[in-house]
Amino acid sequence: MTKKTALLAVANGSEETEAVATMDTLVRGGVQVTMASVERTLQVTASRGVRLVADVLIDDASLQERLFDAVVLPGGMPGAEHLRDSAELLSILKRHAAAKRIIGAICAAPAVTLAAHGLLDGVHATCFPSPAFRGKLQSHPGVDEPVVVDGHFITSQGPGTALAFGLALVQALCGTAQAEQVAKGLLVSMPAVGASAQ
Amino acid sequence: MTKKTALLAVANGSEETEAVATMDTLVRGGVQVTMASVERTLQVTASRGVRLVADVLIDDASLQERLFDAVVLPGGMPGAEHLRDSAELLSILKRHAAAKRIIGAICAAPAVTLAAHGLLDGVHATCFPSPAFRGKLQSHPGVDEPVVVDGHFITSQGPGTALAFGLALVQALCGTAQAEQVAKGLLVSMPAVGASAQ
Ligand SMILES: [Cu+]
Repeated sequence: MTKKTALLAVANGSEETEAVATMDTLVRGGVQVTMASVERTLQVTASRGVRLVADVLIDDASLQERLFDAVVLPGGMPGAEHLRDSAELLSILKRHAAAKRIIGAICAAPAVTLAAHGLLDGVHATCFPSPAFRGKLQSHPGVDEPVVVDGHFITSQGPGTALAFGLALVQALCGTAQAEQVAKGLLVSMPAVGASAQ
Repeated sequence: MTKKTALLAVANGSEETEAVATMDTLVRGGVQVTMASVERTLQVTASRGVRLVADVLIDDASLQERLFDAVVLPGGMPGAEHLRDSAELLSILKRHAAAKRIIGAICAAPAVTLAAHGLLDGVHATCFPSPAFRGKLQSHPGVDEPVVVDGHFITSQGPGTALAFGLALVQALCGTAQAEQVAKGLLVSMPAVGASAQ
């Protein structure tokens, strides 16, 4: 089987645990993760000062031609705003949403990044459970679950749910057995995923 | 109050979630964290490919003069071996252990790094629950708790317990109220810490 692929977008002010725990979980699941910076440099400084080095810049020509199996967005502020304001990332998100590839977002990112571009219209999604963020999820603002899967959208709530978010992505990309194996190595249980039904 | 300080040692092959979630939690708690690379470069590649940029090299002269409130070691292989093999880190660990500063270690690090230097002799500690690692904790190999506090030693088990490990460190450094506040923002419960009594 070909390796599944994921694009993980990061910015200055991205939440480091959400970015890193998610990538860790995906890589453990066998997914080939490309970390892309929406800043002008490969190195970004995350919300609590952790410095990460991405593989590519978001405007790298190679990214505009590739179709990943998933595009994944960490939260953190102002990271989620920087993700929102990247025209290149928006183009990638729209292309992947149209191709029904998996779009994953956690914490501030569902509200601040995806919803701002109308990408969650009609989608059951969750985000960091603060009124300010929840209010931006206009279609279904009340979903309070660690991880919510609705079609090809997978959303989650915060640092404490980042491994569960990663496992839900591995499950969607590589199957339940693979995700269960990864969960064991991480010393966590498989997440109870919120219902996607109305 | 002066800011509490922590030294977080990292290496090529350190477990990224353990390093980053712990730093994230400490910084949220108000601790000033210095990330030190035991490699020859500030940039290290963690066990699943995440690239982190440290603040200083472990042989930086300034480190040999400073007394931190805590020294913290992530697990991951071969990262924990690289930590074990750093003479500069060993000198720092011995000096901080003698001064009864907090020594934190998670996953492979209690077994592979601390126990290898006799630093856990007579200490109740936990580590990643595999027989190979547990066998190295000769004094008390049976402790199977997410986080164990024994005197100034705080040990933990793996990626899934990294936020709990960070919270136990914040609790020890900055008090329970502060740790509870951080736990809320992370969307996790406060860890049930393993008893340190015999
Ligand atoms: Cu966040």
